[in-house]
Amino acid sequence: MGLLIEDDNDGGEVLIPPANFSMVEDGVYRSGFPQLENFGFLSTLNLKSIIYLCAEPYPEENLKSLQSNNIKLFQFGIQGKTDPPTPMPKDTVLSALRVLVDVRNHPILIHCKQGKHRTGCLVGCLRKVQNWCLSSVLEEYQNCAGLKWRQRDLAFIEEFDVHGLRQCLYSIIYQYNGYGLKRRKLLYQEENLVVQEQHKPQATKGW
Amino acid sequence: MGLLIEDDNDGGEVLIPPANFSMVEDGVYRSGFPQLENFGFLSTLNLKSIIYLCAEPYPEENLKSLQSNNIKLFQFGIQGKTDPPTPMPKDTVLSALRVLVDVRNHPILIHCKQGKHRTGCLVGCLRKVQNWCLSSVLEEYQNCAGLKWRQRDLAFIEEFDVHGLRQCLYSIIYQYNGYGLKRRKLLYQEENLVVQEQHKPQATKGW
Repeated sequence: MGLLIEDDNDGGEVLIPPANFSMVEDGVYRSGFPQLENFGFLSTLNLKSIIYLCAEPYPEENLKSLQSNNIKLFQFGIQGKTDPPTPMPKDTVLSALRVLVDVRNHPILIHCKQGKHRTGCLVGCLRKVQNWCLSSVLEEYQNCAGLKWRQRDLAFIEEFDVHGLRQCLYSIIYQYNGYGLKRRKLLYQEENLVVQEQHKPQATKGW
Repeated sequence: MGLLIEDDNDGGEVLIPPANFSMVEDGVYRSGFPQLENFGFLSTLNLKSIIYLCAEPYPEENLKSLQSNNIKLFQFGIQGKTDPPTPMPKDTVLSALRVLVDVRNHPILIHCKQGKHRTGCLVGCLRKVQNWCLSSVLEEYQNCAGLKWRQRDLAFIEEFDVHGLRQCLYSIIYQYNGYGLKRRKLLYQEENLVVQEQHKPQATKGW
């Protein structure tokens, strides 16, 4: 777990996670917008990448911190609160999801402004890729959004289709690992192998 | 990350996490009471142990699942909602915390009934051991407890003294790894080494 047992009274650093910080999966974190005071905490995560989901340019001091820690920034400009409300852009979320499921980018932090709506939608889509049941996906979204949860975000997550992405993941695994039984068993129930082979995606189309 | 990309439409298993499930740290999870329908999901975590924080006996079907998966159960019987409210027992929480910080017990799941109050208090104490600032510790408690957060839990976490446990951790590290500079640097700021040496705990007293 890498417990930090430095003691504030003994001169160790008090760690200040960004607002609304939590761990999503091994090597995947989510939060609100990191401030200067959070940089010490973030350095304990040994991040390789950040997915930033706002349209506004990344602040200069955050950029400097990324550069000095060799952290790659993936920005997907999604509008926040607008009047009238703008629908969450499916294609942009799908692009972010592709970065997110690529373990070469881990450890990775996802953040927007509050870490509730845009971040919550992306994490919700990840859970669908992971085959979580929908009610659990929506519960997680709501727990993290608190009183500010939005009905249209729940609808977005519910409607978001992860089949295309899954097929791409299959195709990449086929490409890099061949058609051996051992790898296929990781993906499919054995009794479905024949059906799966018929639906095998073509190369890495769409990536 | 170990992404599960089985497809429900392709015969893969839909995963149902326990209510209020989330990841706390590498190898540390929290949730509400696991039901039969959650066993499939839990098996993906490869748990070595469970910390169960209720006074009631563990259900037979849950016990069977633990036995067949070789998962160790640590029960710390803490009363739930009582009238008048019972204070959270410090010594019991400390005992649970000792099990929790021992990485030999990881991956580990902490749960009570709802995964909000007893679990939230224990996780809050863990964050204090990790030297999180108090406001972040309390924010995490409140996010996970939602509308059911309790003022007395916040006070319990704030008052809980982790110094004794930290000293025990130091003493164990001294015992197993000797007094080499490399290990000490993991614990202390170098300029504080002299002070630290003066306060070196005696063996593993208290464990």
